[in-house]
Amino acid sequence: MSSISILGEAQLRTLVPLDLAAIEQVEAAFRSLATEAVAMPPVLRLDIPEYAGEVDVKTAYLPRFESFAIKVSPGFFNNPTLGLPSLNGLMLVLSARTGLTEAVLLDNGYLTAVRTAAAGAVAARWLSKRNATRVAVIGAGEQARLQLKALMLVRDIEHVTVWARDPNRAARFAQDIKGVRCEVADSVNHALKHADIAVTTTPGSEPLIRAHDLHPGLHITAMGSDAEHKNELAPAVFKAARYICDRLQQTRVLGELHHAIDAGVVAADATFAELGQVIAGQATGRASDADVTICDLTGTGAQDTAIAALAIARAREAGAGTIFNNDVTL
Amino acid sequence: MSSISILGEAQLRTLVPLDLAAIEQVEAAFRSLATEAVAMPPVLRLDIPEYAGEVDVKTAYLPRFESFAIKVSPGFFNNPTLGLPSLNGLMLVLSARTGLTEAVLLDNGYLTAVRTAAAGAVAARWLSKRNATRVAVIGAGEQARLQLKALMLVRDIEHVTVWARDPNRAARFAQDIKGVRCEVADSVNHALKHADIAVTTTPGSEPLIRAHDLHPGLHITAMGSDAEHKNELAPAVFKAARYICDRLQQTRVLGELHHAIDAGVVAADATFAELGQVIAGQATGRASDADVTICDLTGTGAQDTAIAALAIARAREAGAGTIFNNDVTL
Repeated sequence: MSSISILGEAQLRTLVPLDLAAIEQVEAAFRSLATEAVAMPPVLRLDIPEYAGEVDVKTAYLPRFESFAIKVSPGFFNNPTLGLPSLNGLMLVLSARTGLTEAVLLDNGYLTAVRTAAAGAVAARWLSKRNATRVAVIGAGEQARLQLKALMLVRDIEHVTVWARDPNRAARFAQDIKGVRCEVADSVNHALKHADIAVTTTPGSEPLIRAHDLHPGLHITAMGSDAEHKNELAPAVFKAARYICDRLQQTRVLGELHHAIDAGVVAADATFAELGQVIAGQATGRASDADVTICDLTGTGAQDTAIAALAIARAREAGAGTIFNNDVTL
Repeated sequence: MSSISILGEAQLRTLVPLDLAAIEQVEAAFRSLATEAVAMPPVLRLDIPEYAGEVDVKTAYLPRFESFAIKVSPGFFNNPTLGLPSLNGLMLVLSARTGLTEAVLLDNGYLTAVRTAAAGAVAARWLSKRNATRVAVIGAGEQARLQLKALMLVRDIEHVTVWARDPNRAARFAQDIKGVRCEVADSVNHALKHADIAVTTTPGSEPLIRAHDLHPGLHITAMGSDAEHKNELAPAVFKAARYICDRLQQTRVLGELHHAIDAGVVAADATFAELGQVIAGQATGRASDADVTICDLTGTGAQDTAIAALAIARAREAGAGTIFNNDVTL
């Protein structure tokens, strides 16, 4: 009845590098959220606390694509003690016309990492100062590295400060960074002091950035909060900055916004611009070089569908993928 | 890093026939829902109305299994005009310990059909009269056939009546049934007249069974309603029968129950026994041969995890499946 293309992580790393094309694909997905009849249901979430495990399933149908992704993201935080990475997962690609499975992208979370980093670059492109050169990176994991790499594709970054809870990890990050000066900061406040752009990438549950860490012109992309308990920005930050998010229905529940709502700093029904609306010219992002802007990114199914579409297109061009013939003779 | 087992529909049909073992696997899953700390989040649903498409994603973690399924069920109702089946889908099997993908079951919806039919047999086993011999089948599609086949594994069925909106389909159903007498009924009322068990399997949105169709001793399994707009039982039926369901949190939203709530016949917060509670001895099912019982089945992620676990165990025994090596050298 059908044949299904199966692609592994190694192939997908080759086919979909973190480059400007990936950033533009993700940017188009954000624009679609504001301008097209996108169907994006709430995230499905399964928790398995006895193994420190959580699984998110995201999906979205974008009329511009003939297929849509269903993305499964497990995070199992005891895995490092077993010699395994915490984050994993895969994407299924289904035809939006027939529902037939077209491809299984066994990316082990790689495409999620790329589309997440790309979203950070999109946020910086639309919300940071055009002449931004200095970046503060909060957190020193894999996504921190990718965020910096993506930023360097959209802004002329000259100087990086990095802060992490574990100073050794911050030092390793600084050593690893090539092509730009990178210093370890001894506090979040010091890291942000001269920054034009700050990116938070931690899984923390206590605020790291407080109102007194802000200064005119700063743009903050908050990547870390994609679940209810995660939190990187103190509620008072919301009073001192223009807030923009990837999807308001998600950030009210999962993002930094929900902590500000819980703290009573923001009304539960307050509306804010989404990044796609800024891109589409429907809402103001940065109005002046003195603005302080925040972009709260929880990750959307639209990004997954967009990056999967790019992977499929590249795989077809390259003739890559193992074909699984699923014919049945009854 | 990992190798993943990929199984196609043909293999899965051979490995997991609709038999007593499948019924017992699904029965154990229902019991777990009542007795174990099962994690079963609400169904994720994506609608693509321009192609008459809908996709359900279900999952559940059952402590008794080392892995859990994430099941993707697309229904695209224009597919028959393209020569394709409406229903499709696949199951992913992930380790409950690490979140790693263990298997991809490209069953095109076959395992869903089996676990759905098995659930009907479980409902009849626990709720119909022990000496039930006469079955009314409402609807004449693939699931109607499977429901009857499953029922014949748990009750000594001697006589079948079938009703379908299209009399030709009902006639074909009656011809196809082997091993038991099967007659076409010209109305739902006639079909149910002498039945001990009725199974409704239609995707209809208008009630088919009304209170005056009931008689003492009847058990009804309502399979068809797994989405908000679907409806097979008139609200007044709820006043004349003992209502049991697969999962109350689902049937309040998706099942027959939600139409009875909307009609004001049942209070929104009314509680009812779940099938698993009856199996576990925590709630009464049928108390006498004169009772009228209804089992409202919307389909649960627990059934998917259970049937997937059976498929994986059988595949391991048989050495079946294509191994996809997903090693990455970075």
